[in-house]
Amino acid sequence: MQSGEPIEGFWAVIPAGGSGTRLWPLSRRHSPKFLHDLTGSGQSLLRATWERLAPLAGDRVMVVTGAQHADAVRGQLPMLPHDAVVTEPSPRDSMPAIGLAAAILERRDPEAVLGSFAADHVITDTVRFHEAVRTAVVLARRGDLVTIGVQPTGPATGFGYIRLGEPLAVEGAEGAHRVAQFVEKPDQETAERYLAEGGYRWNAGMFVVRARVLLDLLHETHPEMVSQLRHIAADPHRMDDLWPNVTKIAIDHAVAEPAAAAGRVAVVPATFGWDDIGDFGSLAGLIPVSGEVAGIRVITGGEDILALDSTGIVAADTGRTVALVGVQDIVVVDTADALLVTTLDRAQDVKKIVESLTLQGRTALT
Amino acid sequence: MQSGEPIEGFWAVIPAGGSGTRLWPLSRRHSPKFLHDLTGSGQSLLRATWERLAPLAGDRVMVVTGAQHADAVRGQLPMLPHDAVVTEPSPRDSMPAIGLAAAILERRDPEAVLGSFAADHVITDTVRFHEAVRTAVVLARRGDLVTIGVQPTGPATGFGYIRLGEPLAVEGAEGAHRVAQFVEKPDQETAERYLAEGGYRWNAGMFVVRARVLLDLLHETHPEMVSQLRHIAADPHRMDDLWPNVTKIAIDHAVAEPAAAAGRVAVVPATFGWDDIGDFGSLAGLIPVSGEVAGIRVITGGEDILALDSTGIVAADTGRTVALVGVQDIVVVDTADALLVTTLDRAQDVKKIVESLTLQGRTALT
Repeated sequence: MQSGEPIEGFWAVIPAGGSGTRLWPLSRRHSPKFLHDLTGSGQSLLRATWERLAPLAGDRVMVVTGAQHADAVRGQLPMLPHDAVVTEPSPRDSMPAIGLAAAILERRDPEAVLGSFAADHVITDTVRFHEAVRTAVVLARRGDLVTIGVQPTGPATGFGYIRLGEPLAVEGAEGAHRVAQFVEKPDQETAERYLAEGGYRWNAGMFVVRARVLLDLLHETHPEMVSQLRHIAADPHRMDDLWPNVTKIAIDHAVAEPAAAAGRVAVVPATFGWDDIGDFGSLAGLIPVSGEVAGIRVITGGEDILALDSTGIVAADTGRTVALVGVQDIVVVDTADALLVTTLDRAQDVKKIVESLTLQGRTALT
Repeated sequence: MQSGEPIEGFWAVIPAGGSGTRLWPLSRRHSPKFLHDLTGSGQSLLRATWERLAPLAGDRVMVVTGAQHADAVRGQLPMLPHDAVVTEPSPRDSMPAIGLAAAILERRDPEAVLGSFAADHVITDTVRFHEAVRTAVVLARRGDLVTIGVQPTGPATGFGYIRLGEPLAVEGAEGAHRVAQFVEKPDQETAERYLAEGGYRWNAGMFVVRARVLLDLLHETHPEMVSQLRHIAADPHRMDDLWPNVTKIAIDHAVAEPAAAAGRVAVVPATFGWDDIGDFGSLAGLIPVSGEVAGIRVITGGEDILALDSTGIVAADTGRTVALVGVQDIVVVDTADALLVTTLDRAQDVKKIVESLTLQGRTALT
């Protein structure tokens, strides 16, 4: 199970979408968060995702992204062949993106198993992640839609949850369960109850499944989409014609929830550290307090920060000196054309600034 | 008393010094606060000071400033003749600056009365200010050193205080008192006691006095300085030779405190609004909450500020968009090479950032 060899017939699919408006002004429509090194790891979230998946998939990695990001994606992943970067003319949420990858892969290998992992998540224990994916592939080969459920570390309200069903007794997949239900992001009280009761996992949006099984499940709810995606896979020139009519929907709603209700989803427990970097508050938890700047977690520009009696998180991208005096849990993001000042507690409301700028037609800033 | 005519024989002296480190990064060594329009009045503090004094002094206005600021001062006050801007080769605090003006003026007019008013203070009722100065001149002509004491509006700890002595019975100077003592900036408890007891005024650093009387008083404590200043006044070419040896001292210590102890200082009560704009906290009190940006007092750049559930004060000098989300009593100063984020409560500690930058040798930023 812990072999370093790639998994035969396993394809890693990386949907690289979303604009990350809660991470504005670092993340922009034209430069979304997956293209950035948000955690100071030395590489972008996309590149880190590829690094994490390559040991499992070898050269069987496919990225699905918006047409406007294709050049940036290829620039960060120059080892990918040209046709491994699939471009969408317009965003259609996760189901069409992953479904298109499945339609392309089933033509190459009718037995292909794909694992879909977002380009902008952070995982802190790669070994345990690899173990979980290998376990998920075992179950996927048996015909299940498999997800990886993250052990909650607190009563988070920013994630959806997976309610566990009965344990599965499958050799090589110890600890796996049937999924009883996917549940939406809870309020604080409900999240605390989930944590107290146990039997819940965070839905990290990771799915491992045979390409053909995924399309079969999708066919049960959206047969027209399966037809559209298979036509595009057979002839990419049909993309511009068909894509605008593809239904915009998340994979959770289109496939995962109905399949769970039908008892066809399995979940593999994962104990690795995971975060979707939803906002600067969650990002702050991923960055160590810098040795250079007392109390301040530095995304970029630590050499230009002076902090006195202050705590929080700073991205200083302009080379200007940033001076903080007596501010607590502050968020300061200093970019060439926009400056954000907020607090860790209010960081999720940054998206309202982006909405406001959009309403004002100031889209150059978004 | 309320005539609009200038006061015969009265000279307005404007010491334009100090670097205003607590207003960094707006105020810099090379561009101190008196050169800036900090309150959104449409003119710099220096220019506003001149506008306030010209009705009293006519063309008898003299500015004493650092050599490096002479061009900027002349640029803002183009009506001044060249010799009305007296330049110091190096800062020597307020006594040498005002004393030099006195030495120059006594040569022009042995009966000259001078009034010294800092270039970087804000006064909100010019009519009452004019009344107070006219009253002070009446007393100054009798031979007193006269100060204008501002009625406290709260238990401020950022100002020195004047303890009132017995009332003076001088026609045309009703309400004036002898000064019992100048006292240093008090702690909070003492300031509250001063306010409760009454009989105290804020020391706004305004002095009205015959030029010769000022030099006579100075002669009692610093005879060598009077000699140096009179030599420079007689022959400006002696400046570079003598100035480096002039004692660095404030007029309060050199003259006002000893003269008060000798019963030779009078104080005129003033009820006009006054502030020395010591830091961003006091500046915030001088700027109305903007109609454009809810909750935010705007020094500059209101059109580039988006604020959500926020209060505080913002200077946005770079044309970049400034977005605030859920921050209270915040201070944000956005300049081309430095960004400051602090709170109104901690604004006085901004000087520590300037000290830190200076220690690091980063004087281009100070």
